[in-house]
Amino acid sequence: VRAPHRHGLALGIGDDCAIYRPRGAAEDLLFTTDMTIEGVHFRRETHPPDAVGWRTLARGLSDIAAMGGEPRFCLLSLALAPWADGRWVDRFYDGLLRLARRYGVALAGGDLAHAERVTCDIVVCGSVPRGRALRRDGARAGDHVYVSGRLGGSALGLETNAGPAWRKHLRPEPRIALGRFVREKLGATACMDLSDGFSLDLHRLCLASGVAAELTSPIPAFRGATLDQTLDGGEDYELLFTVRPRTGVPRSFQGLPLARIGAIRRGRAGRVTLDGRPLPARGYDHFRSAPSAL
Amino acid sequence: VRAPHRHGLALGIGDDCAIYRPRGAAEDLLFTTDMTIEGVHFRRETHPPDAVGWRTLARGLSDIAAMGGEPRFCLLSLALAPWADGRWVDRFYDGLLRLARRYGVALAGGDLAHAERVTCDIVVCGSVPRGRALRRDGARAGDHVYVSGRLGGSALGLETNAGPAWRKHLRPEPRIALGRFVREKLGATACMDLSDGFSLDLHRLCLASGVAAELTSPIPAFRGATLDQTLDGGEDYELLFTVRPRTGVPRSFQGLPLARIGAIRRGRAGRVTLDGRPLPARGYDHFRSAPSAL
Repeated sequence: VRAPHRHGLALGIGDDCAIYRPRGAAEDLLFTTDMTIEGVHFRRETHPPDAVGWRTLARGLSDIAAMGGEPRFCLLSLALAPWADGRWVDRFYDGLLRLARRYGVALAGGDLAHAERVTCDIVVCGSVPRGRALRRDGARAGDHVYVSGRLGGSALGLETNAGPAWRKHLRPEPRIALGRFVREKLGATACMDLSDGFSLDLHRLCLASGVAAELTSPIPAFRGATLDQTLDGGEDYELLFTVRPRTGVPRSFQGLPLARIGAIRRGRAGRVTLDGRPLPARGYDHFRSAPSAL
Repeated sequence: VRAPHRHGLALGIGDDCAIYRPRGAAEDLLFTTDMTIEGVHFRRETHPPDAVGWRTLARGLSDIAAMGGEPRFCLLSLALAPWADGRWVDRFYDGLLRLARRYGVALAGGDLAHAERVTCDIVVCGSVPRGRALRRDGARAGDHVYVSGRLGGSALGLETNAGPAWRKHLRPEPRIALGRFVREKLGATACMDLSDGFSLDLHRLCLASGVAAELTSPIPAFRGATLDQTLDGGEDYELLFTVRPRTGVPRSFQGLPLARIGAIRRGRAGRVTLDGRPLPARGYDHFRSAPSAL
């Protein structure tokens, strides 16, 4: 981690979280913010309100996990649409607070407003020992590339609205314990969470690290997921990480499979191949139409 | 400030900011989040985009000022409506970043999405020496009540869309330096910012402190503002604070008038009188229809 600036920021835009270093503290603070919008991130007709609340917080927790942090507290801004009655809101909070309790996260405050469509913005603050946050930009040639779990389940579930894939979509489990294990025990060189799709997210990790990646199939797929869903589907919230080649990585962590899927190479930054053929970065890019200021 | 909990929160929901106490740090961190929604907090037809950006950040900075803090960084979540083209977005950022530069606030990250209506959520983090944050709940019987500036200008400007009141509405100046002065030099017993209207906000301060307040007219009014606008208009972003009765408070601070408007009394918590008659709390209450979880 670079020396913090005057305002105490050790890392700004471009990673899963911003990093703030309080003066004199033993810990760095991680901050992430994510919007959840009716009609974009969930559908009123299909998504139960408690799942909307769960997913709202899970997105932020996953960013904390990606940096090897422990979540501390969250702030929730919630704009309610006219159709969202008290029962919907209560169930939304039930889902969010259930996940918050599981990880010891306090709801510290927020804002409440009214809007045409339900719009939530969650801020999660986490902590990590000073200078130890996992980042995207540390992968080096020769590192091995690993991914947790099985990919494509969330995209499959969104299509079928049934079965284990739908349950995975509705209640993703942020990989907090795995992130800590990857940081403390594996000394990972880079890590990020898979939120916008595997192919796009790996491309970003390689870009940030200035390296290429060579993958070998199979990429672990959720049962029933198509190849497109596996490679490009979003919101799996698994972890993607790189380790030095001699690092012993177990086949699973607390029952969650960890698969070695390739290696980091010198080459054009961001270039990813699968079995020797270029793998296009096709996930969902929120920033495709981003303003220049971002 | 009470002892922090396990998760490090010294203060949660109910004040202008949440307070987080990093382990071992000399500073407490303040967090506040505020939504700005098209059609609710601004009108596309009348509000220039740079003013929308400025106001989005100003709301958060004002909460930091209210606790006597120094702003450090912010996170911006921005959901863009189809009508908001690149030029609008660039000008929005111009306004936000101009205010950010003025107060040394870094834009540390955020999220970007698309929605039916432009929806912004700003998180501002500030810092204050450990245990020194100004709060709402410290006013005691006998304290004098002060307010900065002249009230009702923002409400007047929103009605007229012209003149000094409109300029005040479009580009409110967060009272950061005053907040620090009130904390360091005046040793204020309580402080908050006026965002939802004077009568409602003073009622809340009295409720939080378990006291009543007796006011004497005149309440300083913005030139041209009606009595309703002065007493109940929102978004003035002036500071309301209480001090021990022997505290010497100057008539102005850096050109901004500071007016003594009354005193704190024992009595029913939250009760406010003006010239002996009850002053109804009539500002804008975002939480009137709040869910039970808040």
